[in-house]
Amino acid sequence: MYRPQIKVLDCTVRDGGLMNAWQFDDEFVRAVYQACVNSRVDYMEIGYKSSESAFSRETTGPWRFCNDEDLRRIVGDNDTDLKLSAMADIGKIDFDDIEPRSESVLDMIRVACYIHQMDKAIALAEHCMDKGYEVTINLMSISKVMERDLDEALDDVAKSRIPVLYIVDSFGAMYCEQVEALAKKYKAALPGKTIGFHGHNNQQLAFANTIEAIIHDCNMLDASLLGIGRGAGNCPLELLMSFLKNPKFRVRPLFKVIQEKLIPLQKELRWGYYMPYVINGFLNEHPRTAMAWLDSDRRDDIVAYYDQMVSKEDLY
Amino acid sequence: MYRPQIKVLDCTVRDGGLMNAWQFDDEFVRAVYQACVNSRVDYMEIGYKSSESAFSRETTGPWRFCNDEDLRRIVGDNDTDLKLSAMADIGKIDFDDIEPRSESVLDMIRVACYIHQMDKAIALAEHCMDKGYEVTINLMSISKVMERDLDEALDDVAKSRIPVLYIVDSFGAMYCEQVEALAKKYKAALPGKTIGFHGHNNQQLAFANTIEAIIHDCNMLDASLLGIGRGAGNCPLELLMSFLKNPKFRVRPLFKVIQEKLIPLQKELRWGYYMPYVINGFLNEHPRTAMAWLDSDRRDDIVAYYDQMVSKEDLY
Repeated sequence: MYRPQIKVLDCTVRDGGLMNAWQFDDEFVRAVYQACVNSRVDYMEIGYKSSESAFSRETTGPWRFCNDEDLRRIVGDNDTDLKLSAMADIGKIDFDDIEPRSESVLDMIRVACYIHQMDKAIALAEHCMDKGYEVTINLMSISKVMERDLDEALDDVAKSRIPVLYIVDSFGAMYCEQVEALAKKYKAALPGKTIGFHGHNNQQLAFANTIEAIIHDCNMLDASLLGIGRGAGNCPLELLMSFLKNPKFRVRPLFKVIQEKLIPLQKELRWGYYMPYVINGFLNEHPRTAMAWLDSDRRDDIVAYYDQMVSKEDLY
Repeated sequence: MYRPQIKVLDCTVRDGGLMNAWQFDDEFVRAVYQACVNSRVDYMEIGYKSSESAFSRETTGPWRFCNDEDLRRIVGDNDTDLKLSAMADIGKIDFDDIEPRSESVLDMIRVACYIHQMDKAIALAEHCMDKGYEVTINLMSISKVMERDLDEALDDVAKSRIPVLYIVDSFGAMYCEQVEALAKKYKAALPGKTIGFHGHNNQQLAFANTIEAIIHDCNMLDASLLGIGRGAGNCPLELLMSFLKNPKFRVRPLFKVIQEKLIPLQKELRWGYYMPYVINGFLNEHPRTAMAWLDSDRRDDIVAYYDQMVSKEDLY
């Protein structure tokens, strides 16, 4: 029996944009949108909401800003059952950048933060709620957070109006037992609130960890087409949708857009199962060193990358 | 704390050979062997043991036969801690093809069988034991076996001298809860025996399911370099070895052979995350239709493949 509380969010454009500075053409974004509508995914995260001053328009595509004009060029008034989301990073957006929901085509704003930014995240997310949006807080890099700090942050969220808090395995470092432990901790600390899970695929565990999160009562789940996303990428949406038993879901539209748009794109952007991402995953490190390595002339020298990343004691 | 009972078996050449009719050159097999020795994997499965009459030497490489002469060309007398294994298929080998262990460089013979062949498998495996070999039985396609038949087979194995029985997810169809249920069933039915796990990666769950098998006391684990194997391939050895905490294990030699041998090979042989394999995985179907599709002119038409595989009622 399926669990109707489970909601699936496609983050193809938002997380995938971390690989190309959100420079997707309109045709790509429209195809992803149409696939999300047709497959009856619950949410599509179409990019980040940012201040104009935070990034240059010359080097950064429109989906880093998510202006209403750009959004409507793709989705019109979005007269569908698909809800639209944008992510906001602490420090890259001002309160004034958030227009009232009645003037926007967005339904939800998800605030991404690190552990030390939790107070700012709660303030921004509650501001977005006051403007009429659904909100979540996505607490990143959870695999590097000390337990004492996490307990305090969970307590802060428990006392806030925030309805949804995410476990974000930014480094693709977590195994299923760690997902289980965190999901149980979140659940115990946040009665009445929803828990989300966003995995990265460094160790080919994003989908498996999402299943583990489902088993332990997480009900908001992120995934992306063909797993596109920063570094090794995310939980593949096509796997998650074929696993979930919600009778409204359709997988065929996902295969269509994967065939027409994602597979061609994968030849340009290096997301997926590359050894530097694997190494950062099991070492619990940020993907940036692996991304830089894969952009360099030495990209094929995996052993040199391993030697650089581990301590001398591990060199055998 | 690591579990010393856990043994890891590399099946790169044996299962990978299903993608190229075992036509690896000696240099490749030698590099895999050396990586296994250096990384201190417990077993390397170097191919299948078959009767000369079962396959043509013209179309099938030496690792489908595993003659002692071919083996010794690679490993000499194998004066190392690495144990060597070959797999035997019911119906493709005669009892007389098994020479005494004292004359062979092989340490173990693993008998692969389908559920209806269990009596034959037990007879062949006990024959191999009598010749001096370690043995296992690898019960394939477990995701299609009816419970009544499995109970009878488990009862037969329990009464036999066979020390190890594998759960083999041939179709990459299983989720972690199914691995858990089967591991518990095997364990209850086979007191005193070892349980093995061999996963396929159609849904990117081979590594995760192997972890699940470990949690539920499976102690013989198959994996392959860069996940090479039939169709979507197997559990990547580099992921499993970096997860396990046995202090003797080394991952650096794995990255070396992956860089030098596996990544070049992956450009020729189509194993990995291809949508037809995904579709067969979640439909619980044998990979042969997906392999044929990927060998055809229509390989890029994922939607047509999906439409062919599902019933008309699922076409929406």
